This record gives sequence, C-alpha cells and structure tokens, in this order.
Amino acid sequence: MDANSIAMAETRALWCLWLLSLSAAASQVMGASDSSSSSWSSIFQVVGKSWSSSGEENLETGREMTLKNYCESWRLNVEIHNIRDFYAVPDECSNFVGKYMSSAQFKSDVHRTVDEASLFLTNSFSLAGDGLDAWVFDLDDTLLSTEPFYKQHHFGGDAANRTSLEEWMAKSKAPAVTDMVDFFHKLRSRGIAVFVVSWRPEHLRSATVDNLIKEGYHGWTQLILRCEEEHHGSVQKYNSEQRKQLVGRGYRLWGIISSQWSSITGTPKPRRAFKVPNPMYYL
Amino acid sequence: MDANSIAMAETRALWCLWLLSLSAAASQVMGASDSSSSSWSSIFQVVGKSWSSSGEENLETGREMTLKNYCESWRLNVEIHNIRDFYAVPDECSNFVGKYMSSAQFKSDVHRTVDEASLFLTNSFSLAGDGLDAWVFDLDDTLLSTEPFYKQHHFGGDAANRTSLEEWMAKSKAPAVTDMVDFFHKLRSRGIAVFVVSWRPEHLRSATVDNLIKEGYHGWTQLILRCEEEHHGSVQKYNSEQRKQLVGRGYRLWGIISSQWSSITGTPKPRRAFKVPNPMYYL
Repeated sequence: MDANSIAMAETRALWCLWLLSLSAAASQVMGASDSSSSSWSSIFQVVGKSWSSSGEENLETGREMTLKNYCESWRLNVEIHNIRDFYAVPDECSNFVGKYMSSAQFKSDVHRTVDEASLFLTNSFSLAGDGLDAWVFDLDDTLLSTEPFYKQHHFGGDAANRTSLEEWMAKSKAPAVTDMVDFFHKLRSRGIAVFVVSWRPEHLRSATVDNLIKEGYHGWTQLILRCEEEHHGSVQKYNSEQRKQLVGRGYRLWGIISSQWSSITGTPKPRRAFKVPNPMYYL
Repeated sequence: MDANSIAMAETRALWCLWLLSLSAAASQVMGASDSSSSSWSSIFQVVGKSWSSSGEENLETGREMTLKNYCESWRLNVEIHNIRDFYAVPDECSNFVGKYMSSAQFKSDVHRTVDEASLFLTNSFSLAGDGLDAWVFDLDDTLLSTEPFYKQHHFGGDAANRTSLEEWMAKSKAPAVTDMVDFFHKLRSRGIAVFVVSWRPEHLRSATVDNLIKEGYHGWTQLILRCEEEHHGSVQKYNSEQRKQLVGRGYRLWGIISSQWSSITGTPKPRRAFKVPNPMYYL
C-alpha cells in the first residue's frame, strides 16, 4: 500500500466515523426533545434532504439518503477524475455501486457516451481514406463487461485480485458493453482502422478473441495485448506507448474510448477522448 | 450557431422525439393487450426500470423515470466531458438541473470535490516556502455561485445572456460556493499564493472585489480579470495564457479548481486539476 492508498483509507475511515456519528445523532433526534439535540437536528435536516424528483424532504429515511448522497458524490467525483488512485470501492458504497451497475441508469449513461462519440463521428470526421484514420478502443468495460466478475467481488468493495480476474477472463464469458458493438461496426463501416489496446496479458489472446467474436466484434485492425515485460510499468505509460507506436506508423488518432482515465490521458492525444462510466475500479 | 451547436440541437430534437414515442408507447401498453404492443412493452420495461435505492421496478412511473434517466445521463456526461460545447441545457432537463442545483446532493458533490483537493494539499505538497508555490481558482461557480442568476433563467435552459449576467454580477450578490471559503484560507495558511483567474471583464473589478470580501474571501495574491481586447479569444486560450504568464513569473502551479473544463485543460498543466460539478452552462 503506498502513501496515497493509506491516506485514502484514512479518509474512508473518517467518513465512516462521520456516518456513524450521524446515525447516532439520528436516533438522538428521534428520541429526544431537549435543546441539546437541536444542532444535530439542523445538520440532520440539511444532509437528510434527499434529491428526490418530487423535491420534498424525507426525514424518515434521512440516514439512508445520507449514505446515498455520500456514495453518489463518491461515484461522481470518480467519474470527473477528482478522486484518483483508489484501491477499492469504499466498503459502505459497494451495494450502491452494485445497484448502479445493474440499473437502467447505467445503461442510459453508457448509451449517452456512445451517442456523443457517434455524433463526433458524424460531424467532425473528414477522413483521408488512405487507411490511416484510426480509433482506439480499450477492452475491459469498454468492449466487454467485467460486471459479472465484480458482482462476485462486492462490485469493487474487495480490491481486485488480478489472478482470479484473469481466470474469469480465460472463460471468454464477458458480455458486450451495451451499444458498443454497433458503434464498433459504425466506425469500421466508415473505413476507420480499429485498434483494441488492452492491459490484458498476451497469454489471454485466444480467450479474448473468442470472447470478442462471440459477442459480435470482428474486423479489428489489431488487438494489442500486454507482453510480460510490460507488467511493471504504469497503465498510463503502457497506453501512451502503444498510441505513440500507432502514430509512428502513420495513423491519425481520431478518438479513443475507455472506462479508465489512465487510458485516455497522456500523449499522444487523439482528437477526442470518451470516458465510459465505471465506478468499480481505478487503474 | 456553429455546426456543432446545430448538431447538438438536432440530437436534442431526436431525443425529444424518442421520449415522445416512448410516452405514446406507455399509454399504449397501459391500455392495450394485443400482441402488437409487446415489443414496445419490452422496451418500456427495460428503460422504465428506475435506479431506486430499493432496486424494484417502478413501471407506474416509468415515463417520469425515463426522463430522469435521460437528464441524469446528460448531466453525468457533461461532467465527464463527453458532452461539450453545448449551447444551453436541453429544455426538457432544465427542471431536473434546477432540482439538482438546490439539492443536498449538489452540496455533497461539491463537498467531496473540495475534500479531495484538501487531501491532495495534505498529502502531496512539499512547498519550497519561497512564495512561489501557487494555486489557481476560477471565480464563477467555483468561489462565487451564479445559481441565483441561473434560477431566473431556467437553470441554463435559456442560453446565457452575457449582458444580463454581467448586470447581475455588478450587484455583488453572488453567494459563496459551499466549502470553498474554508479551502481558500486553508491554502493561504500553508503559505500558498492564491490566484483568482476569471473570464469576468475588468469593468466588474470593484463589484467582484466587494462580492468576494463580503463572502469571506480575502488575501489573494492577484485577481486576474479579462481585458477588453481578450474578448474574442476562447476561454481555454485565455486561461492557458494566464497560467503561462504565472509560470513565466516563476510560480509553481500546484493545483487549479474550476467548474469549467476550459479552465482546467490546456497547458501549462498544474500538478492536479479539480472540477467542481456544474451542469448549468459550458464555456
């Protein structure tokens, strides 16, 4: 555990304590009528005001809503890239993350991401038609979903065990991420060279190809997987390096789509980067 | 309106049509039992499954939830920076944005952003103590909130009128953004030079200073406002240029915090950038 992970763990612990104190305050407010509970009561009223579509306060379920506020803020700040390098989903939010991942909201969120990428494709592309216009896809939770694996591991609440994740990947049973198969083929139909660049190790190549084909992906220009010697570098460095090589081969990078900021930040930059929502892990 | 804005308007129109057709399908499903409605029914079931904390389907309020899903996805994708250059908040989402902006969820989201910036301050700063360690704050919806103004303009549903916005700014009545005053002074207490860099025009200087002081901000190193001749450049270019000048004067940029991606992307880069949630407008 590095200094940052420890600091994150400490922050999580503080939040836990705060939530516990709030829960204690809640029972105090419910049971007591003396003036000493009034300051707690006002804190409770502010935090307990849920963001319901009808807009009314819901003091009865204040405690539950507070945890929801907290986890929702955690998730949003992960997506904005304000929260980085987290080791695992906060324990108290793994249920929340699980519900989100199996919700219509998640489907709708990903749909909108893909829709924006398609809009960019429609409006901004003036392709040279020389076969060097390129698009980069990340693999896990971009083309194929690891949600069924994480479902068995508290949706990121347990820190990911790389060995068991790779054993699961070897089964070639990852489902396609919603809407992504269509977008993949939309790019191909425009004559764009599609590259799949992944941190998955080389020994999973045939399982990965099987899985991709089974889920409807085919016709990529190259599937780039990680060699053994690249194991010790950072994911961002790995991804940058792969893009550098593509640019060195003459490709123009129009876009990249990934569920990880480490795959879309760094140089060389494509014209546009699209981030698929993913609150389960951070690479 | 540029090509991109027109394309965005077209997309919004398509979404509207889709929502309308869904609403028509909803009444069909409710009223009809013939097999022709079965495909609509299954679409409705998928999309209508709300992301409620109890996790159950809520077909009765499916239509409402679908609009909520749509607006929530719009908002998330704005924050992730997948949706860019929007001219105004989609009409059908201005109520949603309004509710969010006055919710405990928004307060919680901003609180978490500031908390992460503080964590970075605590863990990562090894200051030289030579007075050249610097932090950049954006102004509107970072230090001071324009929410009361946007409340009168459908929370971004009407495209912002710069003249009326500046008339409102001249009144010096913008409230502080939650948690930001404390964070501002936490930076100062560490000996960090605080720069406020804003697209607000120079003629609003005294109104801006009044407003900042009234809300508890003081002791900044420099308040940088936009000169008249900088009116025609892009906001991103303006912000980059200001940072370039600070670096040229020897300052080390530790962090930047803004509610606009245009203020935190581009070079020179600070060590960390923090994005405050803001679904009301895009600069």
